[in-house]
Parts: sequence; structure tokens; C-alpha cells
Amino acid sequence: MAKDVIVGIVGAGRIGIVHAKSIAYEIPGVTIKTVADPYLTDEAAALLTKLGVENVTKDYKEIINDPDIEAVFICSSTATHSPISQEACKAGKHVFCEKPVDLDIDKIKATLKVVRDSGVKYQVGFNRRFDHNFMALKAAIDSGKIGDVHVLKLTSRDPGPPPIEYIKVSGGIFYDMLVHDFDVARFLSGSEVVEVYAAAAVRVDEEIGKAGDYDTAVVTLKFENGAIAVVDGSRKASYGYDQRVEVFGSKGAVAIGNDALSTAVISNETGVTSEKPLHFFLERYMGAYSEEKVQFFDAIRNNKKPPVGGYDGLVSVVIAEAAKRSAQENRPVKISEITDLND
Amino acid sequence: MAKDVIVGIVGAGRIGIVHAKSIAYEIPGVTIKTVADPYLTDEAAALLTKLGVENVTKDYKEIINDPDIEAVFICSSTATHSPISQEACKAGKHVFCEKPVDLDIDKIKATLKVVRDSGVKYQVGFNRRFDHNFMALKAAIDSGKIGDVHVLKLTSRDPGPPPIEYIKVSGGIFYDMLVHDFDVARFLSGSEVVEVYAAAAVRVDEEIGKAGDYDTAVVTLKFENGAIAVVDGSRKASYGYDQRVEVFGSKGAVAIGNDALSTAVISNETGVTSEKPLHFFLERYMGAYSEEKVQFFDAIRNNKKPPVGGYDGLVSVVIAEAAKRSAQENRPVKISEITDLND
Amino acid sequence: MAKDVIVGIVGAGRIGIVHAKSIAYEIPGVTIKTVADPYLTDEAAALLTKLGVENVTKDYKEIINDPDIEAVFICSSTATHSPISQEACKAGKHVFCEKPVDLDIDKIKATLKVVRDSGVKYQVGFNRRFDHNFMALKAAIDSGKIGDVHVLKLTSRDPGPPPIEYIKVSGGIFYDMLVHDFDVARFLSGSEVVEVYAAAAVRVDEEIGKAGDYDTAVVTLKFENGAIAVVDGSRKASYGYDQRVEVFGSKGAVAIGNDALSTAVISNETGVTSEKPLHFFLERYMGAYSEEKVQFFDAIRNNKKPPVGGYDGLVSVVIAEAAKRSAQENRPVKISEITDLND
Amino acid sequence: MAKDVIVGIVGAGRIGIVHAKSIAYEIPGVTIKTVADPYLTDEAAALLTKLGVENVTKDYKEIINDPDIEAVFICSSTATHSPISQEACKAGKHVFCEKPVDLDIDKIKATLKVVRDSGVKYQVGFNRRFDHNFMALKAAIDSGKIGDVHVLKLTSRDPGPPPIEYIKVSGGIFYDMLVHDFDVARFLSGSEVVEVYAAAAVRVDEEIGKAGDYDTAVVTLKFENGAIAVVDGSRKASYGYDQRVEVFGSKGAVAIGNDALSTAVISNETGVTSEKPLHFFLERYMGAYSEEKVQFFDAIRNNKKPPVGGYDGLVSVVIAEAAKRSAQENRPVKISEITDLND
Repeated sequence: MAKDVIVGIVGAGRIGIVHAKSIAYEIPGVTIKTVADPYLTDEAAALLTKLGVENVTKDYKEIINDPDIEAVFICSSTATHSPISQEACKAGKHVFCEKPVDLDIDKIKATLKVVRDSGVKYQVGFNRRFDHNFMALKAAIDSGKIGDVHVLKLTSRDPGPPPIEYIKVSGGIFYDMLVHDFDVARFLSGSEVVEVYAAAAVRVDEEIGKAGDYDTAVVTLKFENGAIAVVDGSRKASYGYDQRVEVFGSKGAVAIGNDALSTAVISNETGVTSEKPLHFFLERYMGAYSEEKVQFFDAIRNNKKPPVGGYDGLVSVVIAEAAKRSAQENRPVKISEITDLND
Repeated sequence: MAKDVIVGIVGAGRIGIVHAKSIAYEIPGVTIKTVADPYLTDEAAALLTKLGVENVTKDYKEIINDPDIEAVFICSSTATHSPISQEACKAGKHVFCEKPVDLDIDKIKATLKVVRDSGVKYQVGFNRRFDHNFMALKAAIDSGKIGDVHVLKLTSRDPGPPPIEYIKVSGGIFYDMLVHDFDVARFLSGSEVVEVYAAAAVRVDEEIGKAGDYDTAVVTLKFENGAIAVVDGSRKASYGYDQRVEVFGSKGAVAIGNDALSTAVISNETGVTSEKPLHFFLERYMGAYSEEKVQFFDAIRNNKKPPVGGYDGLVSVVIAEAAKRSAQENRPVKISEITDLND
Repeated sequence: MAKDVIVGIVGAGRIGIVHAKSIAYEIPGVTIKTVADPYLTDEAAALLTKLGVENVTKDYKEIINDPDIEAVFICSSTATHSPISQEACKAGKHVFCEKPVDLDIDKIKATLKVVRDSGVKYQVGFNRRFDHNFMALKAAIDSGKIGDVHVLKLTSRDPGPPPIEYIKVSGGIFYDMLVHDFDVARFLSGSEVVEVYAAAAVRVDEEIGKAGDYDTAVVTLKFENGAIAVVDGSRKASYGYDQRVEVFGSKGAVAIGNDALSTAVISNETGVTSEKPLHFFLERYMGAYSEEKVQFFDAIRNNKKPPVGGYDGLVSVVIAEAAKRSAQENRPVKISEITDLND
Repeated sequence: MAKDVIVGIVGAGRIGIVHAKSIAYEIPGVTIKTVADPYLTDEAAALLTKLGVENVTKDYKEIINDPDIEAVFICSSTATHSPISQEACKAGKHVFCEKPVDLDIDKIKATLKVVRDSGVKYQVGFNRRFDHNFMALKAAIDSGKIGDVHVLKLTSRDPGPPPIEYIKVSGGIFYDMLVHDFDVARFLSGSEVVEVYAAAAVRVDEEIGKAGDYDTAVVTLKFENGAIAVVDGSRKASYGYDQRVEVFGSKGAVAIGNDALSTAVISNETGVTSEKPLHFFLERYMGAYSEEKVQFFDAIRNNKKPPVGGYDGLVSVVIAEAAKRSAQENRPVKISEITDLND
């Protein structure tokens, strides 16, 4: 039996706890030694102890400096992702970093340089690629069943907007929400975006507009291989978390829908009613959060390339920036205007 | 019992025959007296006689000059729509004109002026508005069940491209195909388009590109009321005629799918398989072709406004022109750049 | 052009009018010369005149005695089906007889003997065989895609019970409702029923029980070829007319569902809701009423065997009688106990 | 933090391992101290060690005699369920017993007497009650949304028959397969079965018939409250594990379908294809295996009644016996003929 991979987790907020529980309950062969969070709640501390975490601390340096720890999960606030990533890499630790790596493109590039120089495995938390539906969609495309990809349609709607204070620091709808969809579009198209056009509006909450952001957007992406993607996003769908994709190609189309709590269908005088989609990302993507880690640890153990790398983290943010600029300036924006990706 | 409405049909090609059969078999209280077509086939003549048509001629003037005829269906080639419309209106006849009224916006405006001056009923053949699915969608929106409209998504795919010779005179994908979707988007949104952005490509057949047209397009429409629509179109879907719409609003969403020949679902070793969509527009929209005429004759008999008027025919072509220009110049194009609709 | 088939219709109640309209509007090459009904309403008379019926009378003998009339539709009350069938056959006319031919098995046999002796075409109105969904189901079975048939499941639910006065003369749920399903089960299985077990109950309306009938039933049919069918019927489904079938075989299964007015699906806070089934048989089976006549006239014109013959009318009633006896005596009842079908 | 519940597992075959993994990975607060199996494979032993099981033995008496162990999972062969249940109860241990408790009704009754006398918690492994779909179905019924239950339809098809050697000792299709459905029918109807009629056949494999068993069956159950259920079962569905239920009542109907690996739908020239059902019970009911244990441990910790008790285990076997007798004697069989349940 191979010995366990020893990990540390930086950040014990919502997503940090998701990773901790998922590692403890579902992923054999991994031990969480230390969890660091300066604002750790008593409730979180109790849960972590129950999960068998040896060391719960306020100081993430205890993770960076611990020679036993092989891999670090960075689940702290966005602004800390880049610096802690760099420290962890320099300490020779593999890194799983939540998205986005940074809101600043130059800082992402600087971090990626450290990653390359250090030679560690670096994975970015684009969880949707690991969802059972998205994986089935990708497999259908790769099988050749739909031929060359012509058009991709992605729907991305949240059940409700986050607090306005969060929106103000989130980077906006393109960085915070649709960055996932931009990553998925690249993943599915098998090509790179060359130009972006975004039509955006404030329809859900005027406060979001006052904060300089949009809550409704339709983004067109043109790809190198001639495919065109369109992503429509909204901060609020009254019926829950709506995450669907359709890919249309020369030989056919493949589409995925939402998951629901059950297949129950009720027929009565008012109609034929089935269940709403699972409420939000924790419900919908719980399996994906496991699968992304299974593949991360597989990359570590078997010296493979992580399935989503730092470059993917960079490109999705560049697309988000292009979309933001497009919406603000009402014109198509080339990726090459934003940055030189070969740089 | 009211006496029959006497009609003439100009053009006995595919769509003219559809109207003739539908009037003869499904619409009580209407008599087709004359059908005119300079290229009338023997087969069509025999069918028309069987349907009880009294007079089959090469000369449409026999219709214009016949005082018995109250209403004229114009189903001839596009270039003749405007002049024959004007002649018929001036002769005091109600007109049902197949779309588009013209490929030239000024000519449409001139025709609409004649319509206004003559005071006849003038209906344009945007059949989709009368399809059972589109009507149900519209009813759901009007009921308030989905609240304010935020985003409209229209998919419009043909089972295969027409002959390249047809494409060359068709006005292109925006005028020939997506003009229907532009009309539907206006119909459903309850608002007017102010700006258009079109991303278009040649993916199906290079000959289409050589003819100066596109076969694949994604068009974003911004509406006065803040709604955003996106129309994706393709000249070729391997699985048949794909006509779906989804409308997303503040309180929910409503979507319509395709019709199929049956509800049969086969489960076997290879999967769970249901039927493809009905093959093409004649199959899918046969009911709509009846319903549009039922409402046209109701407008005549009861002196109502026709459900789709000349202005609708004009605006949809203006949007098509804006989309074409947008694709060619790769920039958002305002409707006001194309023409003054208040003119 | 072949000359028209001249027909007479006996009975201008609901189903007689359905046939008259369908012939007039949808079936080319057939002329309705005479419609006879002793209780003809003014409204029906006006409609028939509008449909072009030459002669509207109270006396069906005018049809029997008219040498011009080639085919007779018998749409009068059940008790008259047998005697009028015999008269029409003896007069050399082809007959389309609504189901059931009779509630009395010996009378059906007597009528079938007259049919055989006269050599006319005789079709029984089992409309479901001609519904687009049932035809697709049958085609799937015949294609071999599901292999040998093992189990058939038929659901047959009405939107509400008929008036109790009708129920009292209807022959009961097995003769009046499920006789259709027994016919469909034979049609799909490609085999003959040998034994019937019926579990029946009164759950919808106690008055139905007081009339000696049931309103809820589950009937098991064993076929010669080893297939087993189960039919569940109810006089009242709150959500409308529910007519579904599933056939399970050695290589797979095929199922058909209900038709609805549209494919519209509304997603909102309460769930994801689609339309109820079409309300009742006139809505659901309107296409089947046309198709059964298309095939009847094809049999006449081209001297083919009618697709549903008198024997089918007999056997379905024999199964109904076996089901009734089974429910009353709570035991499996063999078809051979009811009658000798080779007789 | 409450101290862990200490458990032992008797039997480390397929289902014993399912329980061990599920406890180790998904159920906090439970420790597996000992697993006993006289035929333990090396592979199973290694896995159990990895799961943290302290003691792996051939002798289940080590579990019975261990005062630390509070609860015993009985996952050994059917013939041992009754005697080990009795030993464990007498030793004061709570018991989770896989179904069936026994193939012999008198032995089940004897075991239930020991359970009652010992006062321990006793749960039978009817996992389907804990499946997300079945729970949603039950909730819909309990909510009153479908009114009084009139008809229940259960489909139960395996992807393929077990080895003929297993079938010979399994008790047959009614005891081995459909006993689950009989339990579900009781659970959903909220009433007790009074009479059973089973039509059964050998259609899948003649060897099954030679072994005195059936592979295809349609079973009608009459309930005290007037509801009628029909269960159709097959040992082989080419498309996988098919487990669907529909419940029809005075106000509407509720139905559940199968789960699939993804929602992906491919449209191409051959049709519109979605995924087959999850392959078999381990895939379909993995969540149910967790949930049944969550509720078992909740009953232990909080001194509640287990959600499926010994009586449920008894009644389902009595129904199976009645079904078997009905099929063999071709007549409806009353439950009271089989045994006195009040005994």
C-alpha cells in the first residue's frame, strides 16, 4: 500500500470545508495534516478535528514550512491566491488553487512563471470539467459523434446574486461567474478564443449596476478553429441553478441538462411537473469536487500533468477581461488586445 | 351563412400549393377562384383542378382585374412581391404576401405607403407566430408567469442548405433564414431591436462562402426594453429541422422544443432513443400555415387588424440588413444606421 | 382521375359528425351523399349542408336503398350496429362500423356471417391502431428492434366518467372503455389471448358501483405466444386523457406517451411544468380518425383487406366478456369458456 | 461529541463490503471493529484493513461475544440470517439484517419473537425505500397531491439473470427479486395486501424454467384500502436495470424513472439518444445503502423505531409465497391462506 499523501489546506471558508470533508470521507490515501485560517470559526475547528485533522492553526506559514506536507490547497480569499501559490511552489509543494488565480493578469503570469520554475504540479479549481454531465458531453465530442464543432451554447444562471459587498470585490460577473463558462467553452471546443463580444445589462438588481457591474450578459466567443460560442449568464434564476450546455457540430448535437433531486413527475390538474434543478453549486457539483481531487492526486502520485493547469487559469481570466472591456466599450475585443498569451 | 370569400393565388410553386391545399381542405368559407403562374406545371394544374379551382392561368393580371376576387395571396418569387402587392392594393384587394416583402428596404417602404393609402388588409407570411408551440410560448409570457423578459434564445437550423443557385439570389442567411427568427424575437419580447451584432462563419459548405454568404451565425439583438436576444442559425443540422426557443425572465423561464412524428422511445443496448424533429418547415409548420390564414380571413370578415402587418415585414428585413452589415464589418450596428423606421 | 366514392352516414351524433367533417375536409375523392339520423339537430343539419352533403334525412333506409352509395358508415347507437350492418352488407355496400359491433357475441357472429356471405369490405372503428404514436410503436416492434414480445403494459384513463345513464347501457368498463385496449394488445402482440384475469374496483364514483359496473380495473391477459399484457384503466384521471403503452421484449423496450397541445415547459419557483395530455379522444385521436378512413377507402378502391376486420371486432368483445366474468367471479377466465372463436 | 457506535459485520461478500465501505467513508460516528467471514478473500481482507477495521476473522462468534459491539450487520448467506439474528438479539445487539430474513415463514416468525423479547432495534435491508426517487414518490403521496391511491404500477427488471446455481437456491423470482417490489408497494400504498394473482412465464432462459422458476412475471396485488398494484418483473432487460414506479390516485399521478450516468442527449441522423439506466443495483442504489444506515444509526442513537422492521421483512415474504402459489396454481391466493399475520 502506498503511503498517504499529506496535505495542508489554506482557508477554511465554505470551499475549504468542502475540500476537507471530501478528502476525509471520499478520497482514500490522503491525510489532511494542517488547516490554516486566521478567522477560523469554532464550528469549523470542531468539524476539522472530527475529520481527523491534526493541526488547526491561524497561520498558513505552518503549512508552507512543514516538510511533511506535499500538497497545498489554496482556498483563501482571491487576493491571496497568487502570493501563497508562489510561496508554496517555492517550498516545493504541489498546489491546488481555487479559481481565479488572480484578478490581475500580470500577477497570474508572474505566478505561472514561479510554477514553471519550481516544477511542481499546479491545478486550478475549474470544477465543472469534472462534473458527470460535462464529462459525458466532452466524451461525446471526443468520440466524433457530432463531428466538427460549429456552435457552443452555454447557459449559466445562479439562483440569486451574492451580497452587494461581495460583488464589489468579485471582479464582476465576467470574472466571478462566467469565467467558469469561458473555461468550459475552451475545454469543449478544443480551440482558443480569438475575439469576444459581450452584451450586458442590469436587469436583476439596480444596486449591481451602481457597483459598476452587470447581472445579465450574453457573450459571443470566436475561436481559432472557426467555432462560435455563446454564453448567457444571469445572477438570478427563480427556479434555481441553471447550468446547461449544447454543442452543435457537422454530424449532430449533444446537450446536457441540469440534475434534480429526483426523477419524480407529478401529473395533476395544473400540469405535468418535475423537480427544479439542484439549488446551487455545492449540490450540483459535489461529485465534481471529488473528481477534480481524485485526478489531482493521481497527477501527483503518477507524475502526470494536472488536468487543468495554470495556463487554463490565465486564459479564462484574459477572456473575462476581454468580455468586460467589450461590454463597457460596446465592440468586439480581440484577446491579443488584452495580453500576449505567448509572453 | 355568410357568403364565401373569393381569393386568387399568384404563384403555384411549393408555398402557393401549400396555401391552395390548406384553403381547400381546412378553411371553410373561402373559395379559390383563380391561380396564376407563368411556369405552371401540369401536375400543379391537375391538383388545382381537383381542389375545385375554377381558373388556372399564366397571367396574374386576371386576378388583379377580377372584381369578384377580394383577397390575393402573393406566393411568387421575392422580386415580384412588392410590385404585385402594390397592384393588388390599388385594385382594392386584401393581400397576404409571403415573406420577405422585398430585399430592398426602400421598396418595402414604398409598398407599405400604398397599403396605407389603399386601406386594405395586408398580412405578411411570418408563419411561425401561428405555430402551436410558439403560440403557447407567447401565451406563457403574456400570462406574466416568467415576469419581465431578460434573455431570449432562438435556435434555427435547417436540415440542409438549399441549392447554391438559390442561395445566390436569396439575400443570404440573414434575409432568407433568420428573418423569421428576428420576427419571432420581436413578437416574443414585446419590444423593438435597437442594435445588432452578428458573428458569422462558413462551416457547412465552402461554396456558400464563395457566394458571399454565411452558413452559420450567432446574432445578438439588444432591445429597447433592455432584453437581449441571441439567435443561432445553421444551414445544416444532420438530425433535421431544429426550431427551439427559450425565454428567460425575472420570474422564470419558458422553452419550446421540436415536434416529432411520434412520442415513441426505444430502449435497448445502445441507449434510449426518441424520434428526430419533423424534417422541415412543411412538416413542422403545416398547422401554422392554416392558422395564419384563419386569422387573415377573420381580419377580413370582421374588419380586424391582421396579426402580422406590413410594418413587421419591414422591421424584420431591417434587422436582417443590420445583421449582415455587422457580420461584414465585425461591429455592433444600430438599427437607426440602416433606416429611419418612423419615416 | 378516378371517380369519387359515394358514401352514406347513418347517425349524426358526435362520432358521425367527426367522420363527416373529416371526409369533407381531409379525404379527397369521397363524396358524402346522404346522412341519416332520426334525431338530427338543426345545428348538425346546417353543418352537413355546409359540408356539401346532398341529402339529410331521418331514415337510414334511404342510404341502404340508394344504388349510388357504395359505402356506409354506421355511427348510430350500439344496438343498431348489427342489424344495419347486415342490411348494408346484403345491399352490397361496404361498411365502416363503429365499435362495438354488438354487446352480444352471438349477434356479432351472425353479422360476421352476413359480411362473409356478401363479400363486402367490413371495417370496425378501432381508431387507436391508426394513431401516429401507436403506429410508431407497432413499427418498432415489427422492425425487430425489441425482439420477442414478453410483456405489454397499457394505460387507459379517461378524463372523467360519462353520465351514469350512459354507463348503465354501455356494457360497462370492459366493453365500453377497455375493449379498445384489448384490441391494441392483440394488434401489438401479434398473438391471441387465451386467458384473462381482471381485478376491478369502484374508486371514482359509488354510483358506478350501484349500476353494477367498475370504474377502476387492472386486467392481465395471457397470450398464445407466451406474452403477458396488463391493462390498467380508470374512468377519471384528473390530468386528462392518459393513453400510454410500453412493450418490453427480449432485445429492448418501446414506449409511447401522450400528446400535448404544445412542447412548452415553464420553469419557475414551483418546479418545471409541461402541458397536460390532450383532453380527450377527439383531440388525441383526430389524426387517427382520418387515417382509418384513408385505409378504408384504399381497401375499397384497391380491393384490399380492411386493416381492422369484423373478426377483430368480435375478439375484442369476447375478451371484454372474459374480463367482466373474471372480475365478477374473481378467477382467471379462459377465452374458450366464453365462446368458440372458430365457430 | 457522542462516542462512536461500534459495529461488527457478518459476511464480507458483495453486500457486506458495500456496507463496510459506506460506513467507513460516508457515515461519521460509527466504527467497524470486526468483520467475520469464513471464506474471506485476501483482497477483501486488505480492503477492510485499509478501511480501519481492527479485527478480521473467520468466526462471527467473535462479534456476538464482544461486549464492545453494539450493532451487527448480517450480510451472510440467506440461510444464516435467522439463526445469527437470534444470537445477536439475545446478546443484546441491535441488528441490521439483509433481506430476506428467511425463506421459511415460520422461521421468520420465530426470529421476530426473539427480536420482540430482546427489545433491540431490528432493521431489514429493504434499501429501495431510501432511494432518492422512491423517497420523493412517497413524499408526493404523503403530501396529498395525488389524493387517494387507486392504482400502483411497479416495473422491476434486472440487466441479466444470476447464475442458474444461484437461482436454484434463491427461492425464485418472487422471493429473490420481486420481494423488494412487494415491500415498496406496501410502503407506498399505506395499506396491506389481501390477495395476490401472479401470471408468470419463462421467456428469458429455459434453464430457469427447468429449475422450477420463472423469469417473467406480472403480479396483481389487492390492498385492504381498495388500491390495486401491478408489478411486472423480468430477469433480463437488454438496456439495464429498470426500476420505475407510477402511483395513480384520485387527484393525479406521480411517477419516478431511472437514473442515468449523465443527462447527455445526442441528436444525429439516427435519432435523439440519451443514456441507458444505471447498470444495476450497486450503481442505482448506492445512495440508498447510505441512507438506510443513517436512519438505522439514528434509530439506535435516539431510541427511535427503525424505518423498516422485522414485520416488513415477514410480510414481503408472505406476499412472495402467495405470488408463487398463485403462479403455480393459476388462481388468486389470499394472504390469509399463507399464514396468520396476527399470529
